[in-house]
Amino acid sequence: MTTALCRVSSNRMFSGRHQRFSHYSDVNHCKMTFAIYQPALASEQALPVLYWLSGLTCNDENFSTKAGAQKIADELGITLVMPDTSPRGEEVPDDENGDYDFGLGAGFYVNATQAPYRNNYQMYDYITKELPLIIAENFNVTDNKSIAGHSMGGHGALICAIKNPGMYQSVSAFAPITNPSDCPWGQKALTGYLGDNPDNWHPWDSCELIKRLQDNDPFLTLPVKVSQGLADDFLQQQLKPQALIEACDARGKTLDYTGVEGFDHSYFFIASYIEEHLRFHRKYL
Amino acid sequence: MTTALCRVSSNRMFSGRHQRFSHYSDVNHCKMTFAIYQPALASEQALPVLYWLSGLTCNDENFSTKAGAQKIADELGITLVMPDTSPRGEEVPDDENGDYDFGLGAGFYVNATQAPYRNNYQMYDYITKELPLIIAENFNVTDNKSIAGHSMGGHGALICAIKNPGMYQSVSAFAPITNPSDCPWGQKALTGYLGDNPDNWHPWDSCELIKRLQDNDPFLTLPVKVSQGLADDFLQQQLKPQALIEACDARGKTLDYTGVEGFDHSYFFIASYIEEHLRFHRKYL
Repeated sequence: MTTALCRVSSNRMFSGRHQRFSHYSDVNHCKMTFAIYQPALASEQALPVLYWLSGLTCNDENFSTKAGAQKIADELGITLVMPDTSPRGEEVPDDENGDYDFGLGAGFYVNATQAPYRNNYQMYDYITKELPLIIAENFNVTDNKSIAGHSMGGHGALICAIKNPGMYQSVSAFAPITNPSDCPWGQKALTGYLGDNPDNWHPWDSCELIKRLQDNDPFLTLPVKVSQGLADDFLQQQLKPQALIEACDARGKTLDYTGVEGFDHSYFFIASYIEEHLRFHRKYL
Repeated sequence: MTTALCRVSSNRMFSGRHQRFSHYSDVNHCKMTFAIYQPALASEQALPVLYWLSGLTCNDENFSTKAGAQKIADELGITLVMPDTSPRGEEVPDDENGDYDFGLGAGFYVNATQAPYRNNYQMYDYITKELPLIIAENFNVTDNKSIAGHSMGGHGALICAIKNPGMYQSVSAFAPITNPSDCPWGQKALTGYLGDNPDNWHPWDSCELIKRLQDNDPFLTLPVKVSQGLADDFLQQQLKPQALIEACDARGKTLDYTGVEGFDHSYFFIASYIEEHLRFHRKYL
Protein backbone atom coordinates (compact mmCIF):
# COMPACT_ATOMS: atom_id res chain seq x y z
CA MET A 1 0.00 0.00 0.00
CA THR A 2 1.32 3.42 -0.92
CA THR A 3 0.83 6.22 1.58
CA ALA A 4 -0.86 9.30 0.13
CA LEU A 5 1.38 12.34 0.45
CA CYS A 6 0.05 15.90 0.47
CA ARG A 7 2.57 18.54 -0.60
CA VAL A 8 2.48 21.37 1.92
CA SER A 9 5.12 23.55 0.28
CA SER A 10 7.86 23.43 -2.32
CA ASN A 11 10.74 25.89 -2.61
CA ARG A 12 13.70 26.01 -4.93
CA MET A 13 16.88 26.00 -2.84
CA PHE A 14 20.44 25.76 -4.14
CA SER A 15 20.43 23.34 -7.08
CA GLY A 16 17.44 21.44 -5.74
CA ARG A 17 14.18 21.74 -3.91
CA HIS A 18 13.05 21.89 -0.29
CA GLN A 19 9.58 20.44 0.21
CA ARG A 20 7.20 19.65 3.05
CA PHE A 21 4.70 16.82 2.94
CA SER A 22 1.93 15.68 5.24
CA HIS A 23 0.45 12.20 5.37
CA TYR A 24 -1.61 9.99 7.63
CA SER A 25 0.63 7.95 9.89
CA ASP A 26 -0.54 4.39 10.45
CA VAL A 27 1.66 4.00 13.51
CA ASN A 28 0.93 7.37 15.14
CA HIS A 29 -2.74 7.47 14.11
CA CYS A 30 -2.60 11.11 13.11
CA LYS A 31 -1.37 13.41 10.38
CA MET A 32 2.40 13.83 10.33
CA THR A 33 4.49 16.39 8.44
CA PHE A 34 8.06 16.00 7.26
CA ALA A 35 10.47 18.07 5.17
CA ILE A 36 12.81 16.76 2.50
CA TYR A 37 15.64 18.48 0.67
CA GLN A 38 16.72 16.91 -2.61
CA PRO A 39 19.68 18.19 -4.61
CA ALA A 40 19.06 18.52 -8.36
CA LEU A 41 21.21 15.40 -8.77
CA ALA A 42 18.25 13.40 -7.41
CA SER A 43 16.53 13.85 -10.76
CA GLU A 44 19.36 11.89 -12.39
CA GLN A 45 20.28 9.28 -9.82
CA ALA A 46 19.16 7.79 -6.51
CA LEU A 47 20.81 9.52 -3.57
CA PRO A 48 21.55 8.36 -0.03
CA VAL A 49 19.51 9.87 2.80
CA LEU A 50 20.42 11.55 6.04
CA TYR A 51 17.60 11.60 8.59
CA TRP A 52 17.72 14.54 10.97
CA LEU A 53 15.92 14.31 14.32
CA SER A 54 15.25 17.63 16.02
CA GLY A 55 15.12 18.50 19.69
CA LEU A 56 12.48 19.54 22.21
CA THR A 57 9.89 22.09 20.98
CA CYS A 58 10.96 21.72 17.34
CA ASN A 59 9.02 20.54 14.33
CA ASP A 60 10.27 19.82 10.81
CA GLU A 61 10.98 23.50 10.15
CA ASN A 62 13.69 24.41 12.68
CA PHE A 63 16.55 22.50 11.14
CA SER A 64 15.15 23.24 7.67
CA THR A 65 15.47 26.98 8.13
CA LYS A 66 18.27 27.47 10.68
CA ALA A 67 21.06 24.95 10.13
CA GLY A 68 22.28 25.80 6.64
CA ALA A 69 22.47 22.08 5.94
CA GLN A 70 20.99 22.16 2.45
CA LYS A 71 23.97 24.06 1.06
CA ILE A 72 26.34 21.27 2.05
CA ALA A 73 23.91 18.44 1.27
CA ASP A 74 23.56 19.92 -2.19
CA GLU A 75 27.31 19.89 -2.68
CA LEU A 76 27.71 16.37 -1.32
CA GLY A 77 24.73 14.79 -3.07
CA ILE A 78 22.80 13.82 0.05
CA THR A 79 19.02 13.94 0.44
CA LEU A 80 17.93 15.29 3.83
CA VAL A 81 14.77 14.07 5.55
CA MET A 82 13.56 16.11 8.51
CA PRO A 83 10.60 14.64 10.42
CA ASP A 84 8.55 16.24 13.16
CA THR A 85 9.43 15.52 16.81
CA SER A 86 6.05 14.15 17.87
CA PRO A 87 2.55 13.36 16.70
CA ARG A 88 0.35 16.45 16.30
CA GLY A 89 -3.29 17.37 16.22
CA GLU A 90 -6.13 18.31 18.52
CA GLU A 91 -6.89 14.66 19.25
CA VAL A 92 -3.29 13.90 20.28
CA PRO A 93 -2.79 14.07 24.08
CA ASP A 94 -0.27 16.65 25.27
CA ASP A 95 1.53 17.22 28.54
CA GLU A 96 -1.16 17.79 31.17
CA ASN A 97 0.40 21.15 32.07
CA GLY A 98 1.32 22.03 28.49
CA ASP A 99 5.04 21.96 29.37
CA TYR A 100 7.56 22.01 26.53
CA ASP A 101 9.41 18.87 27.60
CA PHE A 102 6.68 16.24 27.23
CA GLY A 103 3.92 15.54 24.76
CA LEU A 104 3.63 17.67 21.63
CA GLY A 105 7.09 18.59 20.34
CA ALA A 106 8.65 16.10 22.73
CA GLY A 107 8.01 12.56 21.52
CA PHE A 108 11.47 11.39 22.57
CA TYR A 109 11.55 8.89 19.67
CA VAL A 110 10.19 6.02 21.78
CA ASN A 111 7.14 3.76 21.41
CA ALA A 112 4.85 4.73 24.27
CA THR A 113 3.20 1.96 26.28
CA GLN A 114 1.18 4.14 28.65
CA ALA A 115 -2.31 5.56 28.25
CA PRO A 116 -3.25 8.06 26.95
CA TYR A 117 -0.05 8.37 24.90
CA ARG A 118 0.40 4.91 23.43
CA ASN A 119 -2.15 5.39 20.66
CA ASN A 120 -0.19 8.25 19.06
CA TYR A 121 3.33 8.38 20.42
CA GLN A 122 5.00 5.64 18.38
CA MET A 123 7.76 7.87 17.14
CA TYR A 124 10.40 5.14 17.13
CA ASP A 125 8.39 3.02 14.73
CA TYR A 126 7.60 6.12 12.71
CA ILE A 127 11.28 7.09 12.31
CA THR A 128 12.72 3.61 11.77
CA LYS A 129 9.92 1.84 9.89
CA GLU A 130 7.07 3.92 8.49
CA LEU A 131 8.91 7.02 7.30
CA PRO A 132 11.78 5.19 5.55
CA LEU A 133 9.19 3.19 3.59
CA ILE A 134 7.41 6.36 2.57
CA ILE A 135 10.69 7.93 1.48
CA ALA A 136 11.70 4.85 -0.50
CA GLU A 137 8.31 4.67 -2.20
CA ASN A 138 8.10 8.33 -3.18
CA PHE A 139 11.62 9.67 -3.73
CA ASN A 140 14.69 8.72 -5.73
CA VAL A 141 16.84 7.33 -2.90
CA THR A 142 19.29 4.49 -2.40
CA ASP A 143 19.09 2.08 0.52
CA ASN A 144 21.98 3.88 2.19
CA LYS A 145 20.92 5.99 5.10
CA SER A 146 22.47 7.68 8.10
CA ILE A 147 20.91 9.45 11.02
CA ALA A 148 21.73 12.52 13.09
CA GLY A 149 20.05 14.80 15.56
CA HIS A 150 20.22 17.47 18.24
CA SER A 151 19.58 17.14 21.96
CA MET A 152 16.43 14.96 22.26
CA GLY A 153 17.03 14.22 18.57
CA GLY A 154 20.64 13.25 19.27
CA HIS A 155 19.28 10.74 21.77
CA GLY A 156 16.84 9.59 19.10
CA ALA A 157 19.55 9.18 16.46
CA LEU A 158 21.74 7.18 18.83
CA ILE A 159 19.02 4.77 19.97
CA CYS A 160 17.77 4.26 16.42
CA ALA A 161 21.30 3.35 15.32
CA ILE A 162 22.05 1.12 18.31
CA LYS A 163 18.74 -0.74 18.10
CA ASN A 164 18.87 -1.33 14.33
CA PRO A 165 22.12 -3.07 13.41
CA GLY A 166 22.95 -2.55 9.76
CA MET A 167 20.18 -0.06 9.10
CA TYR A 168 22.35 3.07 9.15
CA GLN A 169 25.80 3.69 7.68
CA SER A 170 26.74 6.21 10.37
CA VAL A 171 25.22 8.23 13.20
CA SER A 172 26.00 11.64 14.64
CA ALA A 173 24.62 13.90 17.31
CA PHE A 174 24.88 17.47 18.50
CA ALA A 175 24.57 17.79 22.28
CA PRO A 176 22.58 14.54 22.67
CA ILE A 177 20.68 13.51 25.78
CA THR A 178 22.96 10.52 26.27
CA ASN A 179 21.46 8.94 29.35
CA PRO A 180 17.76 9.80 29.61
CA SER A 181 17.22 7.35 32.49
CA ASP A 182 19.45 9.60 34.56
CA CYS A 183 18.41 13.18 33.76
CA PRO A 184 15.28 15.25 34.47
CA TRP A 185 14.11 15.61 30.85
CA GLY A 186 14.53 11.91 30.23
CA GLN A 187 13.01 10.72 33.47
CA LYS A 188 9.91 12.81 32.94
CA ALA A 189 9.45 11.63 29.35
CA LEU A 190 10.24 7.98 29.95
CA THR A 191 7.94 7.86 32.96
CA GLY A 192 5.13 9.43 30.97
CA TYR A 193 5.52 7.28 27.88
CA LEU A 194 6.78 4.02 29.43
CA GLY A 195 5.69 4.01 33.06
CA ASP A 196 7.67 4.37 36.24
CA ASN A 197 9.74 1.18 36.15
CA PRO A 198 13.27 2.14 35.05
CA ASP A 199 13.79 -1.34 33.65
CA ASN A 200 11.43 -0.32 30.88
CA TRP A 201 13.47 2.80 30.15
CA HIS A 202 16.77 1.07 29.47
CA PRO A 203 15.86 -0.17 25.96
CA TRP A 204 15.50 3.54 25.05
CA ASP A 205 18.68 4.83 26.70
CA SER A 206 21.91 4.99 24.67
CA CYS A 207 24.22 4.40 27.60
CA GLU A 208 22.19 1.49 28.94
CA LEU A 209 21.90 -0.05 25.47
CA ILE A 210 25.64 0.22 24.86
CA LYS A 211 26.40 -1.44 28.21
CA ARG A 212 24.32 -4.44 27.16
CA LEU A 213 25.69 -4.90 23.61
CA GLN A 214 26.94 -8.34 22.56
CA ASP A 215 30.62 -8.50 21.63
CA ASN A 216 29.80 -8.94 17.97
CA ASP A 217 27.15 -6.21 17.78
CA PRO A 218 27.50 -4.20 14.55
CA PHE A 219 27.08 -0.95 16.46
CA LEU A 220 30.54 -1.48 17.94
CA THR A 221 32.05 -0.79 14.51
CA LEU A 222 29.53 1.83 13.32
CA PRO A 223 31.01 5.34 12.78
CA VAL A 224 29.64 7.55 15.57
CA LYS A 225 30.34 11.28 15.90
CA VAL A 226 29.22 13.53 18.75
CA SER A 227 29.78 17.28 19.07
CA GLN A 228 29.06 19.04 22.34
CA GLY A 229 29.28 22.75 23.09
CA LEU A 230 31.08 23.29 26.37
CA ALA A 231 29.10 26.46 27.16
CA ASP A 232 25.82 24.51 26.85
CA ASP A 233 23.55 25.33 29.81
CA PHE A 234 22.20 21.77 29.79
CA LEU A 235 25.56 20.03 29.73
CA GLN A 236 25.86 18.65 33.23
CA GLN A 237 22.27 18.14 34.28
CA GLN A 238 20.60 16.90 31.08
CA LEU A 239 23.11 15.88 28.41
CA LYS A 240 25.93 14.14 30.32
CA PRO A 241 28.40 13.44 27.50
CA GLN A 242 30.71 11.81 30.04
CA ALA A 243 28.19 9.01 30.55
CA LEU A 244 28.29 8.20 26.84
CA ILE A 245 32.07 8.40 26.70
CA GLU A 246 32.32 6.02 29.66
CA ALA A 247 29.75 3.60 28.27
CA CYS A 248 31.63 3.47 24.95
CA ASP A 249 35.00 3.11 26.68
CA ALA A 250 33.69 0.22 28.77
CA ARG A 251 32.62 -1.64 25.61
CA GLY A 252 35.70 -0.73 23.59
CA LYS A 253 33.53 1.33 21.25
CA THR A 254 35.29 4.07 19.29
CA LEU A 255 33.47 7.38 19.62
CA ASP A 256 34.45 10.50 17.69
CA TYR A 257 33.61 12.96 20.48
CA THR A 258 34.49 16.64 20.38
CA GLY A 259 33.75 19.18 23.08
CA VAL A 260 33.94 22.67 21.61
CA GLU A 261 34.74 25.69 23.75
CA GLY A 262 32.25 28.52 23.94
CA PHE A 263 29.36 26.97 22.01
CA ASP A 264 25.90 26.68 23.56
CA HIS A 265 22.79 24.57 22.90
CA SER A 266 21.40 26.75 20.10
CA TYR A 267 21.12 26.41 16.35
CA PHE A 268 24.08 28.78 16.09
CA PHE A 269 26.11 25.80 17.30
CA ILE A 270 24.50 23.41 14.83
CA ALA A 271 24.98 25.83 11.94
CA SER A 272 28.66 26.13 12.83
CA TYR A 273 29.34 22.38 12.73
CA ILE A 274 26.76 20.89 10.38
CA GLU A 275 29.23 20.90 7.50
CA GLU A 276 31.66 18.80 9.53
CA HIS A 277 28.87 16.33 10.37
CA LEU A 278 27.62 16.06 6.80
CA ARG A 279 31.14 15.43 5.50
CA PHE A 280 31.50 12.75 8.16
CA HIS A 281 28.33 11.00 6.98
CA ARG A 282 29.28 11.40 3.31
CA LYS A 283 32.30 9.15 3.89
CA TYR A 284 30.00 6.25 4.75
CA LEU A 285 26.89 6.92 2.68
CA MET B 1 27.81 61.05 23.67
CA THR B 2 28.03 57.27 23.67
CA THR B 3 24.81 55.33 23.36
CA ALA B 4 24.31 52.74 26.10
CA LEU B 5 24.01 49.26 24.64
CA CYS B 6 22.27 46.41 26.44
CA ARG B 7 23.41 42.94 25.35
CA VAL B 8 20.31 40.83 24.71
CA SER B 9 22.13 37.63 23.71
CA SER B 10 25.53 36.37 22.69
CA ASN B 11 26.22 33.09 20.88
CA ARG B 12 29.41 31.58 19.57
CA MET B 13 29.02 30.96 15.85
CA PHE B 14 31.71 29.77 13.45
CA SER B 15 34.96 31.46 14.48
CA GLY B 16 33.18 34.43 15.96
CA ARG B 17 30.13 35.57 17.85
CA HIS B 18 26.55 36.49 17.01
CA GLN B 19 25.10 39.05 19.40
CA ARG B 20 21.95 41.10 19.82
CA PHE B 21 21.88 44.52 21.45
CA SER B 22 19.13 46.90 22.41
CA HIS B 23 19.51 50.63 22.93
CA TYR B 24 17.42 53.77 23.10
CA SER B 25 17.16 55.39 19.68
CA ASP B 26 17.34 59.17 19.71
CA VAL B 27 15.83 59.40 16.23
CA ASN B 28 13.05 56.83 16.67
CA HIS B 29 12.30 57.73 20.30
CA CYS B 30 12.02 54.11 21.37
CA LYS B 31 14.11 51.07 22.16
CA MET B 32 15.64 49.43 19.09
CA THR B 33 17.30 46.03 18.77
CA PHE B 34 19.95 45.02 16.28
CA ALA B 35 22.07 41.92 15.71
CA ILE B 36 25.75 41.85 14.84
CA TYR B 37 27.95 38.99 13.70
CA GLN B 38 31.69 39.47 14.13
CA PRO B 39 34.23 36.94 12.87
CA ALA B 40 37.01 36.13 15.36
CA LEU B 41 39.29 38.24 13.18
CA ALA B 42 37.53 41.32 14.59
CA SER B 43 39.47 40.82 17.82
CA GLU B 44 42.69 41.40 15.88
CA GLN B 45 41.76 44.01 13.31
CA ALA B 46 38.99 46.38 12.30
CA LEU B 47 36.66 44.81 9.75
CA PRO B 48 34.36 46.34 7.13
CA VAL B 49 30.61 46.14 7.71
CA LEU B 50 27.73 44.90 5.63
CA TYR B 51 24.36 46.27 6.73
CA TRP B 52 21.44 43.95 5.99
CA LEU B 53 17.92 45.39 5.78
CA SER B 54 15.13 42.85 6.13
CA GLY B 55 11.70 42.78 4.56
CA LEU B 56 8.10 43.15 5.70
CA THR B 57 7.20 41.41 9.00
CA CYS B 58 10.85 40.70 9.86
CA ASN B 59 12.93 41.85 12.79
CA ASP B 60 16.68 41.45 13.37
CA GLU B 61 16.34 37.68 13.79
CA ASN B 62 15.08 36.44 10.41
CA PHE B 63 18.23 36.99 8.40
CA SER B 64 20.31 36.08 11.48
CA THR B 65 18.84 32.61 11.68
CA LYS B 66 17.75 31.75 8.14
CA ALA B 67 20.23 33.06 5.58
CA GLY B 68 23.41 31.20 6.47
CA ALA B 69 25.29 34.46 5.96
CA GLN B 70 27.57 34.20 8.98
CA LYS B 71 29.40 31.21 7.53
CA ILE B 72 30.50 33.23 4.50
CA ALA B 73 31.03 36.48 6.41
CA ASP B 74 33.31 34.56 8.73
CA GLU B 75 35.36 33.27 5.82
CA LEU B 76 35.50 36.67 4.12
CA GLY B 77 36.21 38.76 7.21
CA ILE B 78 33.06 40.88 7.08
CA THR B 79 31.07 42.07 10.09
CA LEU B 80 27.31 41.82 9.56
CA VAL B 81 24.90 44.31 11.13
CA MET B 82 21.22 43.37 11.05
CA PRO B 83 18.81 46.06 12.30
CA ASP B 84 15.11 45.76 12.94
CA THR B 85 12.65 46.84 10.22
CA SER B 86 10.75 49.41 12.27
CA PRO B 87 10.47 51.06 15.66
CA ARG B 88 8.86 48.84 18.30
CA GLY B 89 7.06 49.14 21.59
CA GLU B 90 3.61 49.67 23.01
CA GLU B 91 3.86 53.42 22.59
CA VAL B 92 4.78 53.14 18.89
CA PRO B 93 1.74 53.55 16.60
CA ASP B 94 0.99 50.57 14.36
CA ASP B 95 -1.18 50.09 11.29
CA GLU B 96 -4.73 50.92 12.32
CA ASN B 97 -5.90 47.48 11.20
CA GLY B 98 -2.79 45.68 12.41
CA ASP B 99 -1.90 44.71 8.83
CA TYR B 100 1.56 43.30 8.14
CA ASP B 101 2.48 45.80 5.45
CA PHE B 102 2.46 49.05 7.42
CA GLY B 103 3.58 50.14 10.88
CA LEU B 104 5.40 47.64 13.10
CA GLY B 105 7.67 45.43 11.02
CA ALA B 106 7.15 47.69 8.01
CA GLY B 107 9.04 50.94 8.50
CA PHE B 108 10.02 51.11 4.82
CA TYR B 109 13.30 52.85 5.73
CA VAL B 110 11.87 56.35 5.28
CA ASN B 111 11.61 59.36 7.59
CA ALA B 112 7.90 59.76 8.27
CA THR B 113 6.40 63.23 8.10
CA GLN B 114 2.83 62.33 9.03
CA ALA B 115 1.20 62.07 12.45
CA PRO B 116 1.09 59.82 14.37
CA TYR B 117 4.08 58.10 12.76
CA ARG B 118 6.64 60.88 12.47
CA ASN B 119 7.69 60.73 16.10
CA ASN B 120 8.98 57.14 15.81
CA TYR B 121 9.30 56.14 12.18
CA GLN B 122 12.62 57.73 11.29
CA MET B 123 14.15 54.53 10.00
CA TYR B 124 16.18 56.21 7.25
CA ASP B 125 18.03 58.37 9.76
CA TYR B 126 18.39 55.35 12.04
CA ILE B 127 19.99 53.20 9.32
CA THR B 128 22.18 55.83 7.71
CA LYS B 129 23.14 58.02 10.68
CA GLU B 130 22.43 56.76 14.19
CA LEU B 131 23.21 53.07 13.83
CA PRO B 132 26.52 53.50 11.94
CA LEU B 133 27.71 55.83 14.72
CA ILE B 134 26.75 53.25 17.35
CA ILE B 135 28.58 50.53 15.43
CA ALA B 136 31.69 52.67 14.98
CA GLU B 137 31.73 53.62 18.67
CA ASN B 138 31.26 50.11 20.03
CA PHE B 139 32.80 47.62 17.61
CA ASN B 140 36.09 47.13 15.84
CA VAL B 141 35.10 48.26 12.35
CA THR B 142 36.65 50.19 9.48
CA ASP B 143 34.89 53.05 7.72
CA ASN B 144 34.15 50.77 4.79
CA LYS B 145 30.54 49.71 4.63
CA SER B 146 28.15 48.22 2.14
CA ILE B 147 24.41 47.64 2.32
CA ALA B 148 22.04 44.91 1.17
CA GLY B 149 18.49 43.81 1.79
CA HIS B 150 15.45 41.80 0.80
CA SER B 151 12.14 43.05 -0.61
CA MET B 152 11.25 46.14 1.48
CA GLY B 153 14.84 45.92 2.70
CA GLY B 154 16.12 45.76 -0.88
CA HIS B 155 14.27 49.02 -1.48
CA GLY B 156 15.84 50.37 1.70
CA ALA B 157 19.34 49.36 0.67
CA LEU B 158 18.96 50.96 -2.75
CA ILE B 159 17.60 54.29 -1.50
CA CYS B 160 20.22 54.49 1.25
CA ALA B 161 22.96 53.98 -1.35
CA ILE B 162 21.50 56.38 -3.90
CA LYS B 163 20.84 59.13 -1.35
CA ASN B 164 24.29 58.93 0.32
CA PRO B 165 27.01 59.31 -2.29
CA GLY B 166 30.28 57.86 -1.05
CA MET B 167 28.84 56.31 2.09
CA TYR B 168 28.70 52.71 0.83
CA GLN B 169 31.22 50.75 -1.21
CA SER B 170 28.53 48.62 -2.88
CA VAL B 171 24.84 47.79 -2.65
CA SER B 172 22.85 44.65 -3.37
CA ALA B 173 19.28 43.51 -3.13
CA PHE B 174 17.22 40.35 -3.26
CA ALA B 175 13.81 40.88 -4.84
CA PRO B 176 13.68 44.61 -4.00
CA ILE B 177 10.59 46.78 -4.16
CA THR B 178 12.12 48.90 -6.88
CA ASN B 179 9.41 51.45 -7.48
CA PRO B 180 7.31 51.90 -4.32
CA SER B 181 5.45 54.88 -5.79
CA ASP B 182 3.94 52.47 -8.29
CA CYS B 183 3.00 49.35 -6.31
CA PRO B 184 0.38 48.58 -3.64
CA TRP B 185 2.80 47.92 -0.76
CA GLY B 186 4.72 51.10 -1.51
CA GLN B 187 1.72 53.32 -2.12
CA LYS B 188 0.14 52.30 1.18
CA ALA B 189 3.35 52.84 3.14
CA LEU B 190 4.38 56.08 1.49
CA THR B 191 0.89 57.51 1.89
CA GLY B 192 0.86 56.58 5.55
CA TYR B 193 4.32 57.88 6.36
CA LEU B 194 4.61 60.78 3.90
CA GLY B 195 1.09 61.83 2.98
CA ASP B 196 -0.85 61.46 -0.23
CA ASN B 197 1.14 63.74 -2.53
CA PRO B 198 3.28 61.48 -4.77
CA ASP B 199 5.82 64.28 -5.16
CA ASN B 200 6.81 63.55 -1.57
CA TRP B 201 7.29 59.85 -2.32
CA HIS B 202 9.83 60.28 -5.10
CA PRO B 203 12.81 61.05 -2.79
CA TRP B 204 12.21 57.55 -1.34
CA ASP B 205 11.77 55.64 -4.59
CA SER B 206 14.83 54.06 -6.26
CA CYS B 207 13.53 54.42 -9.78
CA GLU B 208 12.47 58.03 -9.31
CA LEU B 209 15.77 58.88 -7.60
CA ILE B 210 17.81 57.32 -10.41
CA LYS B 211 15.86 59.25 -13.04
CA ARG B 212 16.83 62.50 -11.32
CA LEU B 213 20.56 61.80 -10.79
CA GLN B 214 23.10 64.38 -11.96
CA ASP B 215 25.51 63.18 -14.61
CA ASN B 216 28.40 63.13 -12.15
CA ASP B 217 26.52 61.42 -9.33
CA PRO B 218 28.74 58.82 -7.63
CA PHE B 219 25.89 56.30 -7.62
CA LEU B 220 26.30 55.97 -11.37
CA THR B 221 29.61 54.18 -10.76
CA LEU B 222 28.67 52.34 -7.55
CA PRO B 223 28.62 48.52 -7.85
CA VAL B 224 24.96 47.44 -7.69
CA LYS B 225 23.79 43.82 -7.72
CA VAL B 226 20.17 42.64 -7.80
CA SER B 227 18.92 39.04 -7.72
CA GLN B 228 15.29 38.27 -8.42
CA GLY B 229 13.55 34.90 -8.26
CA LEU B 230 11.39 34.45 -11.33
CA ALA B 231 8.85 32.31 -9.45
CA ASP B 232 8.33 35.13 -6.93
CA ASP B 233 4.59 35.66 -6.33
CA PHE B 234 5.17 39.40 -5.86
CA LEU B 235 7.24 39.90 -9.01
CA GLN B 236 4.86 41.77 -11.28
CA GLN B 237 2.60 43.59 -8.87
CA GLN B 238 4.98 44.68 -6.10
CA LEU B 239 8.64 44.28 -7.08
CA LYS B 240 8.82 45.36 -10.73
CA PRO B 241 12.47 44.67 -11.53
CA GLN B 242 11.88 45.91 -15.08
CA ALA B 243 11.26 49.41 -13.73
CA LEU B 244 14.70 49.42 -12.10
CA ILE B 245 16.37 47.99 -15.18
CA GLU B 246 14.77 50.67 -17.34
CA ALA B 247 15.61 53.49 -14.94
CA CYS B 248 19.25 52.38 -14.87
CA ASP B 249 19.37 51.95 -18.63
CA ALA B 250 17.99 55.44 -19.14
CA ARG B 251 20.79 56.92 -16.98
CA GLY B 252 23.52 54.69 -18.40
CA LYS B 253 23.89 53.04 -15.00
CA THR B 254 25.42 49.54 -14.98
CA LEU B 255 23.26 47.13 -12.99
CA ASP B 256 24.30 43.55 -12.23
CA TYR B 257 20.79 42.09 -12.47
CA THR B 258 20.06 38.35 -12.45
CA GLY B 259 16.64 36.76 -12.71
CA VAL B 260 16.84 33.18 -11.46
CA GLU B 261 14.41 30.54 -12.63
CA GLY B 262 12.25 28.76 -10.09
CA PHE B 263 13.13 30.76 -6.99
CA ASP B 264 10.44 32.46 -4.92
CA HIS B 265 10.34 35.29 -2.36
CA SER B 266 11.38 33.18 0.64
CA TYR B 267 14.53 32.88 2.70
CA PHE B 268 15.25 29.67 0.78
CA PHE B 269 16.08 32.00 -2.12
CA ILE B 270 18.23 34.29 0.03
CA ALA B 271 20.10 31.32 1.55
CA SER B 272 20.83 30.02 -1.95
CA TYR B 273 22.42 33.27 -3.19
CA ILE B 274 23.78 35.03 -0.10
CA GLU B 275 27.27 33.67 -0.74
CA GLU B 276 27.27 35.22 -4.21
CA HIS B 277 26.17 38.57 -2.76
CA LEU B 278 28.73 38.53 0.06
CA ARG B 279 31.54 37.72 -2.37
CA PHE B 280 30.33 40.60 -4.55
CA HIS B 281 30.53 43.02 -1.61
CA ARG B 282 33.88 41.65 -0.48
CA LYS B 283 35.44 42.86 -3.74
CA TYR B 284 34.65 46.47 -2.80
CA LEU B 285 34.84 46.48 1.01
